[in-house]
Amino acid sequence: MAQNARLQGLGILVLCALLYPAMTTGQQPVLNLMPLPASVQSGAGSMGVDSSFSVAFTGYTEPRLERAGERFLRQLARQTALPLSLKPAGLAKATLVVHTEHASKEIQEVGEDENYVLEVTTAGAKLTAPTPLGAMHGLQTFLQLVDVSPSGFAAPALKIQDQPRFPWRGLMIDSARHFIPLDVIRRNIDGMEAVKMNVFHWHLSENQGFRVESRKYPKLHELGSDALYYTQDEIRDLIAYARDRGIRVVPEFDMPGHSTAWFVGHPELASGKGPYAIERKWGIFDPAMDPANEKVYKFLDDLIGEMARIFSDHYFHIGGDEVNGKEWDANPKIQAFMKAHGIKNNEALQAYFSGRVQKLVTKHGKTVIGWDEVLVEGVPKDIVIQSWRGQASLAKAAKQGYRGILSNGYYLDLGWSAARHYAVDPMSGDAANLSAQEKQRILGGESCMWAEYVNPENVDSRIWPRNAAIAERLWSPQEVRDAASMYARLDFVSARLEWLGLTHRSVSRHMLRRLAGSASPAEFAALRTLADVLEPVKDYTREQTAPAEPTSATPMNRVVDAVPLESDAGRRFGELVDLFVAASCHDPAAEARLRAQLATWRDNDAILQPLAQRSFLVQEVAGRSQDLAALGSAGLAALDVIAMGQPTADSWKAQQLASIDAAKKPKAQLLLIPAPAVQKLIEAVTAGGACASPKP
Amino acid sequence: MAQNARLQGLGILVLCALLYPAMTTGQQPVLNLMPLPASVQSGAGSMGVDSSFSVAFTGYTEPRLERAGERFLRQLARQTALPLSLKPAGLAKATLVVHTEHASKEIQEVGEDENYVLEVTTAGAKLTAPTPLGAMHGLQTFLQLVDVSPSGFAAPALKIQDQPRFPWRGLMIDSARHFIPLDVIRRNIDGMEAVKMNVFHWHLSENQGFRVESRKYPKLHELGSDALYYTQDEIRDLIAYARDRGIRVVPEFDMPGHSTAWFVGHPELASGKGPYAIERKWGIFDPAMDPANEKVYKFLDDLIGEMARIFSDHYFHIGGDEVNGKEWDANPKIQAFMKAHGIKNNEALQAYFSGRVQKLVTKHGKTVIGWDEVLVEGVPKDIVIQSWRGQASLAKAAKQGYRGILSNGYYLDLGWSAARHYAVDPMSGDAANLSAQEKQRILGGESCMWAEYVNPENVDSRIWPRNAAIAERLWSPQEVRDAASMYARLDFVSARLEWLGLTHRSVSRHMLRRLAGSASPAEFAALRTLADVLEPVKDYTREQTAPAEPTSATPMNRVVDAVPLESDAGRRFGELVDLFVAASCHDPAAEARLRAQLATWRDNDAILQPLAQRSFLVQEVAGRSQDLAALGSAGLAALDVIAMGQPTADSWKAQQLASIDAAKKPKAQLLLIPAPAVQKLIEAVTAGGACASPKP
Repeated sequence: MAQNARLQGLGILVLCALLYPAMTTGQQPVLNLMPLPASVQSGAGSMGVDSSFSVAFTGYTEPRLERAGERFLRQLARQTALPLSLKPAGLAKATLVVHTEHASKEIQEVGEDENYVLEVTTAGAKLTAPTPLGAMHGLQTFLQLVDVSPSGFAAPALKIQDQPRFPWRGLMIDSARHFIPLDVIRRNIDGMEAVKMNVFHWHLSENQGFRVESRKYPKLHELGSDALYYTQDEIRDLIAYARDRGIRVVPEFDMPGHSTAWFVGHPELASGKGPYAIERKWGIFDPAMDPANEKVYKFLDDLIGEMARIFSDHYFHIGGDEVNGKEWDANPKIQAFMKAHGIKNNEALQAYFSGRVQKLVTKHGKTVIGWDEVLVEGVPKDIVIQSWRGQASLAKAAKQGYRGILSNGYYLDLGWSAARHYAVDPMSGDAANLSAQEKQRILGGESCMWAEYVNPENVDSRIWPRNAAIAERLWSPQEVRDAASMYARLDFVSARLEWLGLTHRSVSRHMLRRLAGSASPAEFAALRTLADVLEPVKDYTREQTAPAEPTSATPMNRVVDAVPLESDAGRRFGELVDLFVAASCHDPAAEARLRAQLATWRDNDAILQPLAQRSFLVQEVAGRSQDLAALGSAGLAALDVIAMGQPTADSWKAQQLASIDAAKKPKAQLLLIPAPAVQKLIEAVTAGGACASPKP
Repeated sequence: MAQNARLQGLGILVLCALLYPAMTTGQQPVLNLMPLPASVQSGAGSMGVDSSFSVAFTGYTEPRLERAGERFLRQLARQTALPLSLKPAGLAKATLVVHTEHASKEIQEVGEDENYVLEVTTAGAKLTAPTPLGAMHGLQTFLQLVDVSPSGFAAPALKIQDQPRFPWRGLMIDSARHFIPLDVIRRNIDGMEAVKMNVFHWHLSENQGFRVESRKYPKLHELGSDALYYTQDEIRDLIAYARDRGIRVVPEFDMPGHSTAWFVGHPELASGKGPYAIERKWGIFDPAMDPANEKVYKFLDDLIGEMARIFSDHYFHIGGDEVNGKEWDANPKIQAFMKAHGIKNNEALQAYFSGRVQKLVTKHGKTVIGWDEVLVEGVPKDIVIQSWRGQASLAKAAKQGYRGILSNGYYLDLGWSAARHYAVDPMSGDAANLSAQEKQRILGGESCMWAEYVNPENVDSRIWPRNAAIAERLWSPQEVRDAASMYARLDFVSARLEWLGLTHRSVSRHMLRRLAGSASPAEFAALRTLADVLEPVKDYTREQTAPAEPTSATPMNRVVDAVPLESDAGRRFGELVDLFVAASCHDPAAEARLRAQLATWRDNDAILQPLAQRSFLVQEVAGRSQDLAALGSAGLAALDVIAMGQPTADSWKAQQLASIDAAKKPKAQLLLIPAPAVQKLIEAVTAGGACASPKP
C-alpha cells in the first residue's frame, strides 16, 4: 500500500503524536485528537480563535464545501459561544484558508483520496486537500484542536499530515429491530463525521420490521413495520445529509433469512405456509425466502431495482446470515427442487439463492456486500465480505481474492470496553500473514449496533463514546494502540460529541431520574454512585439471564438500560488500585483516594435502601447496592491491615474474599465493576500484614 | 369572586393539600403537584399504570382534545418508558376517561372556565371538565401524579377539585434583545402547559431588533433584525401550538420608545434625525416615535392591522415603557406641536400618543394592554395595565376601574430565588385593601424573562424551575405559601420538566464543559463543586459591575452565564446550618454532613487551580474558589471550637469573620451563596466555646 510506505517515512513524527498527550504537562496544550493523525509536527505558540475568526475557500469549490464551512463555523460557535459570522470571508481576511484541489466523485467511492494537510501558525491556519473529502476531515481536526487557553480560545501551532489507514470505516445501525427515528440517525452521522468514519451501513429489514417505503410493493412497509418506516424522500434526504459529511450510505436488506417482516404482506415469498406476523421476540427464527420459487426472484428484481434507484451507493448489502434451514427442510417442493438441480444441502441451496440475488444486484448496477455466509464457491470476485466471524475468515477470503471488512470484535451491543474493541485490528491474526496484495483486499471494518436492547432513547449511549475508539483503529496508523492515551483523549472527545446533540452522556442521568421518581437529592446521588460502577452483562448473557423472555415491547426502563456499557468510575478505581499495589501500597495520596471511595461505597447502601423500598426499578438493584457496600468494607479492611502492618490469621484472606463473592456475580443483569480490583487489594495483603505487588 | 366563596367551603381540604407533602413519610406516596390544586381528598391505595393504560374521551370532543390525549400519552410513555398505544381506547376498556361538557371559545378569552375534577381510584380514573381547557389542565395533573412505586408505576387514589385563582397567568419572553428560535419557544410553552400557565406574552420589538415579518413594511424585519425574525407562517403555527395547550399568545410591539430597530428601515417614524442602526448595547435609549407626525399613525394603522390579523388574541400589547423624551425635547416640530395642542410635558405627549394608538388597536378589534406608563387620565376603561412598578400602582389602577396584572416581583432576569418570587402576591400590599369588586380587576400576573443576558442556550435555565413557583402563586389558593413545601415539590417538577425537552438542568454542566476544556475528571468535578454554590449577582448589578460594556455580541460563555440563578446546594447548606444551630449545635448527623461539605470546599481549590491556569474562563473564578476554601476552613474552625467546648480568645470571632469577608463580596459578577450561612455558624460560637442559637 502506498499509504503504508509513506507512513514509514513519517515514523518519528507518528511517535511524537503518540507520546504527545502523555508528554504534555502544566500549561502545554494537550492534543486531544481522535482519531490521531498519521503525523503531527508540533510548533511554537498557538493561534487565537476569537469573534473575528473566519474561513475562506480557494481552489476547487462546490456547494457542499460551503455548507461544510458553515457547519464548521456553527460548531465552532457552539464550542466557544463566540458570535462568529457564518459568511465566508475574503481570502486576505480569513484566519483559516481551505484549499481544495479538485472534485471528488459524484457518488463517493471506496478508496477515494481523503488526505489533508493542516498547518496552524500563530498568524493563521491553512488546510489543503486534494478533494472535498480531505478538506472536510481537516475541518473536523481543526475543531478538535480548538480549546480554551489561558488567554482565550486557541489552536496550537502545528503541522498535521493525515490520511486514513483503511478506506472503509463504517458504523452499522440496526433500525429494524427497534426503529430509530431520523433525527437520531442524523446526529449519529454527525458523530461519525467528527471521528472521520465514512460508511453508514443501514440495517433496514429484519424479522421484526421492514423499514423502507416501497412503492412497488407497499405491503412490505404497510404490514411489516407497525407504521415505523422511512419514506423514500426521507431516505434521499438522509443520503444527501451523509454525503455532505463525506459518508456513504450502504443499505442492507437481509435475505433469505431474517425476513419474517417481509412475509406479513408477502407470504408467497416464504418457504413455510404462513400466515406470518411481525416477530416480537429476539433470536434466530425459521422463516426464510423460498429459493425454489421463480416468483421470489421476480419480486426481488423489482424491489432491488427500486431500492437501487434510491440508494445511490455502489454497494448493496444482501445480508445472508443465520439461516437455520428448517422451513426449507419442511417444504416438499423445495426438497424436490434441490433434488432436481443436484443441490446437496441447505448451504448449497443458500449459495444458489445468493448467486441469483447477486446477479440481480449486478443487473441494477451495484456490487454485493454480505455477511460471511455469502462467500461460497463460485461467487464472483467483486463481492465484499463483511466478517462477523473474525480475522481468520477475512484472511481466507482475501487469499481467495475477495475483499472484506471486519466486524467481529466491533459489535457495540456486546458491551465490551473501548480498550477491548481498540485492541482488535483487522490486520491481526491470520490477516497479519497475508501478502501485500492480499492485505490490500482488507478494506477496513465496521462497528455494529444491533438493536435488541437499544431504542431511540439510549442508542447514542450504546454507540458512543466507544465507537470513537473503533474509528481511531480504522483511521490511525497501526502503531497507535496505547489504551491509556486512547482513554485520555476519548474522555475529551466524548464530551465534545455532546455538542453535536448526541446524548450518550446525559441520557443515563435522565433515565435514572425515571427510576428514582421522587427521590430526595441525597437518594438520587446514592443511586448515581451505584450506577456509576455498574455495567450491563456482556456478550449474549442478557438473553440468557432475562427474568422473562424479552420482546420488542419490553419497556427499557431498568438500571441495565440506563447505565453506560462501560463504567468510567469503575475503570479509574481499577487503575488506582493497580497504582497503589504497584507501589507496594506505599502511596499515601492513592491510599487517601481509595479510602474515600471505599467509604462512600460502604455508606451508600444505607442512603439508597429507602428509595429501593419505594421504587420497583431501584429495588431491582438493592442487592447490587449491598454488594457494593460489602466491597467498600472489605477494601477498607484490607487497607487497615496494611496500614497497621498487623499479621493476619490464615483465615483472614479467605474470609475477606468470601465476603465479596456475591459482588463478583452478575445480578439484575449487571456487573459490579470494582469487584476484581477490591479482590486484587485483598490478595495483595500478605500473611504478615504487608503488601506484595502481584507478579507482573 | 365566586371562586373565593367556593374556596372557603373547601378550606379543610385545602389545608390537607398543603400539609400532604410534609405529612407523608416512608412508603406513603408524596403528592408532588405544582401548582397545588384547590382541593385534594386523598383515598386508599393507588391505580397501577402499565402498558395497557389507555384514555377515552366522552361528551364534547374536538381535534384539539384528541391531540391533547395523544400528547399526554406520549409524555406518559416518556416518563415511564412504557410502550403505550397512542390510539384512543373504547370507553369500556379505557383506564382514564375524560369527560368534557362543552366547547371553549374559538379565541380563548380571559376568565374562561378552566376547572376540572379528577378522581383516581384503584380501578381507574375519571377526569371531568366543563371545557377542553379544564380537561387539558387535568391531564397535566394526572401526569404529575404518576410516579414509580414498589409495584410498578402508579397514581395514588384521590379526588382533586381544581380551579385557578387568577384568570391571567402569563410568561413573557423577550425574544427581541436576543433572538430566541421557535423550538426554544415551543418547549417553554410545553413547560407553561405543565404548570398551567395560560398566557404567552411575546415581546417582539426592541431597540435591538424587530422580530416579525411585515409584508406591509418589509424593511422593518429586513433591516431591523439581522435576519433573525419569525415569518408570519411560523407565528401562525406557534399560535396554533399554544392554543392546543390552552395558552393565549399576546404580542407586544413596544412604542413609542424601545423602538430603534424600527427606525433602521423607517427613520421617518422617529423623532430624531437619524440615520439609525440596530442598537447593540443595553439600557434606555433616546430614539422614540414622533407623536406629532400624522404619517406615524398612518403607518401604525397599517402595521397594527396587519399584526392584528396574524395574532388572533383579543389583547394587543403596545409597551409604552421608559421613554426618556430626549428626542422630543430636541425636535422643534414636536415642541411646536405640543404648544399648538396645549400639551404641557412629555408625559402628556406620551398620553396623547398612547391615546391615538389605543384607538387604532380598538379599530382593529383588539383591546390594549400596556405597561404602567400607559395609564394616564382619560384612557378608556377597557385597557389592561401590566405593572412593573408594583401592587400599589396595580391597586391604584383597580380603584380607577382599570384591570391589571402584576409583573413587579416576577422579573426572572433579576435572579431572585424561587421563594422570593413565591412570596410576591398580586393581592398583597395596597391590593389587599381593595373592595371585592376592585379585586376582581386584578386579573393575575406574568413572569418576565428580559433577555439582555440570556440566549437560546441558557434561556431555559433562566426561566425554570423558578417560573413554576410563580405559576403556583397564580393558580393555587392564596393560602398555599409554604416555601419548604414549594421547594420539595419544585425539585420533582423541575426534573419532570426536562422530559419536555427543556434544558434548564442539563445546560449548566454543558456550558461548564466549554469553560473546562480538557479538564481531567477530578478538575471538572472541582469546577462543578464551585459552580454549584455560585449565583449571578442580583437585580441590575450585572450591568453595574461589567468588566467591559456588554453588548448583544458579548459571548455568553462565562461562569456567570453557566450557573443557575438559584443554587440548590447553597440553599440546602443554609438549611442545614439553620437546623444545626437551632439544635444548639448538638446534632451529630448534621455536624457530620456539615464537616463533609466544608472539608470538600476547603480542599476543592487545590484541585481547581491548575485548571484555572489553563483556562481564561476558569481563571475568572479562581478568586471565588479561594474564597470557598476560606469558607470551608472557617466553618470547620467554628465546628472544632464547638466540639472542644474550648473558650476562645476575644479576637477569635473577629478573626474568623474577617477571614470570610472576601467571600461575602461579589466577584466575577458572582455571589458565593454559603457565605452568610458560614457566618451564622461562626456567630453562633460563644466566648465560652459553646453554641448559642440566634434569637428567633
